[in-house]
Amino acid sequence: MDEDREQQRYERAHDPSRVLVLSDGVCAIIITLLVLEVHVPEDLHPGETLLTELRAIRPSIVAFLISFVVVAIAWVGHRDLFTAIRRTDRMLVWLNILLLLPLCLLPFGASLIARYPTDAVALRIYGLLLIAIAGGRAGIWIYATGRAHLLYDPPDRQFRRAGVAVAVGPAVAYAVAFGIAEVAPTMSMVIYGAVPVVYFLAVSFARSTSPSGSAEGDLT
Amino acid sequence: MDEDREQQRYERAHDPSRVLVLSDGVCAIIITLLVLEVHVPEDLHPGETLLTELRAIRPSIVAFLISFVVVAIAWVGHRDLFTAIRRTDRMLVWLNILLLLPLCLLPFGASLIARYPTDAVALRIYGLLLIAIAGGRAGIWIYATGRAHLLYDPPDRQFRRAGVAVAVGPAVAYAVAFGIAEVAPTMSMVIYGAVPVVYFLAVSFARSTSPSGSAEGDLT
Amino acid sequence: MDEDREQQRYERAHDPSRVLVLSDGVCAIIITLLVLEVHVPEDLHPGETLLTELRAIRPSIVAFLISFVVVAIAWVGHRDLFTAIRRTDRMLVWLNILLLLPLCLLPFGASLIARYPTDAVALRIYGLLLIAIAGGRAGIWIYATGRAHLLYDPPDRQFRRAGVAVAVGPAVAYAVAFGIAEVAPTMSMVIYGAVPVVYFLAVSFARSTSPSGSAEGDLT
Amino acid sequence: MDEDREQQRYERAHDPSRVLVLSDGVCAIIITLLVLEVHVPEDLHPGETLLTELRAIRPSIVAFLISFVVVAIAWVGHRDLFTAIRRTDRMLVWLNILLLLPLCLLPFGASLIARYPTDAVALRIYGLLLIAIAGGRAGIWIYATGRAHLLYDPPDRQFRRAGVAVAVGPAVAYAVAFGIAEVAPTMSMVIYGAVPVVYFLAVSFARSTSPSGSAEGDLT
Repeated sequence: MDEDREQQRYERAHDPSRVLVLSDGVCAIIITLLVLEVHVPEDLHPGETLLTELRAIRPSIVAFLISFVVVAIAWVGHRDLFTAIRRTDRMLVWLNILLLLPLCLLPFGASLIARYPTDAVALRIYGLLLIAIAGGRAGIWIYATGRAHLLYDPPDRQFRRAGVAVAVGPAVAYAVAFGIAEVAPTMSMVIYGAVPVVYFLAVSFARSTSPSGSAEGDLT
Repeated sequence: MDEDREQQRYERAHDPSRVLVLSDGVCAIIITLLVLEVHVPEDLHPGETLLTELRAIRPSIVAFLISFVVVAIAWVGHRDLFTAIRRTDRMLVWLNILLLLPLCLLPFGASLIARYPTDAVALRIYGLLLIAIAGGRAGIWIYATGRAHLLYDPPDRQFRRAGVAVAVGPAVAYAVAFGIAEVAPTMSMVIYGAVPVVYFLAVSFARSTSPSGSAEGDLT
Repeated sequence: MDEDREQQRYERAHDPSRVLVLSDGVCAIIITLLVLEVHVPEDLHPGETLLTELRAIRPSIVAFLISFVVVAIAWVGHRDLFTAIRRTDRMLVWLNILLLLPLCLLPFGASLIARYPTDAVALRIYGLLLIAIAGGRAGIWIYATGRAHLLYDPPDRQFRRAGVAVAVGPAVAYAVAFGIAEVAPTMSMVIYGAVPVVYFLAVSFARSTSPSGSAEGDLT
Repeated sequence: MDEDREQQRYERAHDPSRVLVLSDGVCAIIITLLVLEVHVPEDLHPGETLLTELRAIRPSIVAFLISFVVVAIAWVGHRDLFTAIRRTDRMLVWLNILLLLPLCLLPFGASLIARYPTDAVALRIYGLLLIAIAGGRAGIWIYATGRAHLLYDPPDRQFRRAGVAVAVGPAVAYAVAFGIAEVAPTMSMVIYGAVPVVYFLAVSFARSTSPSGSAEGDLT
């Protein structure tokens, strides 16, 4: 009975549910806060129409859309991972908070590239945030999927590799965009926008070609 | 036993609970963020009173109220649908994110028509957002209610049709408002404001005339 | 078995859990958004210190504190009520959304009295919001506690009366503050600030004098 | 049976789940709102680059990071505590709301020290908020861990002492920072930034040196 109680206390201390509520909450807030950086044109001077003025804020709309999809992908990946995780330990709680940090900075980064869409410094800061998000995601996958006592099922190498691949893949592309931001800022922005599309197609392809019930089939 | 484990893993990967937390969070944030677009009059010049100045921000209050009800109806419809859904698959997760996109843009749209209440471009952008929300809702209903393995009960044609109808109905009205925005901007705005009222009455009527236990009776 | 399925479907359609998540989310967001109306003094001119400038924003801090407590009391009352409610029906879902409306407008109202602390119009708009919140709360209590099929236990008259009393009491005080806003604006503001204190003491007193296990004992 | 019903009602009225949703929501919103105080440089004048302008907003980034970690630690401590708590009573609900108050004011405090990083008044207000957060946390620990009927397991003196220590320790450091804000503002800021690091190391050390299964081992 005393052992039972010990076990229950252990389970409660390692219950991931509040980590999920916090993470879902942060993701929900960020995708809605992002729109606050899309400013309604203030005054129409003679010869201006709302349409011409809206064209002027196009960079902020592009930044919104890219950032929206970045958060959506991060959230979906987070959800995928935590379908395999049964318990969180101290390290996992803090790794998760570390992942939330660049996510919370994303509205600032989006605002920066919306205001300075061709400035290498703005593009690089945004790129660093994207790399940090991908890195944080990979870190959590590697940490959690390698520890049997945190998982529902025995560690699954293939699931682990698939999860890390879908995090590291984008990070590599972002690093390239970071590198060329000075010489080819437009290309850099295009990469930020294209990665989610490629990501989506790649995961779809991996799912469709993998045998049913395999690890890739669980990626959303 | 191995099959059991497989089944449990399948259920966890298709558990809709986090999709609901994210959606509820987004809806809660949007209806509260909307008020940030209602600006307190900054300075009272001689001859002005707060009352006259508040009249000047009436468009932003109207935009707030319309948008509040739009989100409320979207949330209620979302809740209705997910009382029938037992599992989410990859497609449903992404369809849901696609529905959140125009919802997240709604504060921008509301701000736009609050600032330019008679500008056709502003009215049309707002209309597009409303149509996208209704379309996203219809898409989720059609996708989910046609797949038995995602539902608690066998697909119910009547429930499906009712759910699509209450999404498509408003969309048609919004399309009309979109069309006439140039020639009759005030009428366009009136339609945006009237749709929720008509919607509410229509659902009430459908419920009261339908036999108890029927599909329409479950619409909120 | 068919009846079982019908029953389960009924229960799912009347499950209050998402109503609670939405309400908790809105309350959490409002108490945090309120602080955005407390503006940091922009520039210190010669002869000014941060302390003198902070005194100038005292009204906005007072408005923040009053509004914070108003939302806290509304949330606690909401929680009290939903400890008795087992099911929500269509009417209750919409009554709850109606209660969220003035809550969502509260940051605007707080901003208004922070900017115009002695203006009768500002004070009355704020008062109307407080009355609407109290009224919405009373409406939900009256509706829900009178319907046995929505409750865990048979309707409890005393619990009902206690719940309505703690909602109507403040509303009466707010109505007085509304009435005197023109002739005695400062007194009006004092009432808004004092009601939560009196409320808290009254509930404490009602709890301490009621026999253990009685209805008042459940009020938080 | 009547006693059963009484017991169930008692459990529902003391269920902590909504307190947790509200607290998680508030923490999620604050860490995301904090970034709104980091402003993108508006215009680049001749001779300025984005990099030089970003250096100018460094204080706001530092304030963001410190505040982010403060909220993260408060949330982690909250989660630790509520793994031991089975029921909440009236006092605990209100103590928790009292803890949320300084948390909600943190974005204002962060904005203040970002704008006036060397002003003693700004530093002291921020310090007071940190002390209030630590104090609120200690208050909840002391109240809850001393009441057997609120806990899963019998009160554990060691767990209680550990929880209070990790709350009071930082508070003492903040009080020092508060005291020296006038004579050594930079040192004051350094303390605010260093406490989380020391905190983290101290908890790590306490965990690693404590026997497995002991109270300190449960601190996150």
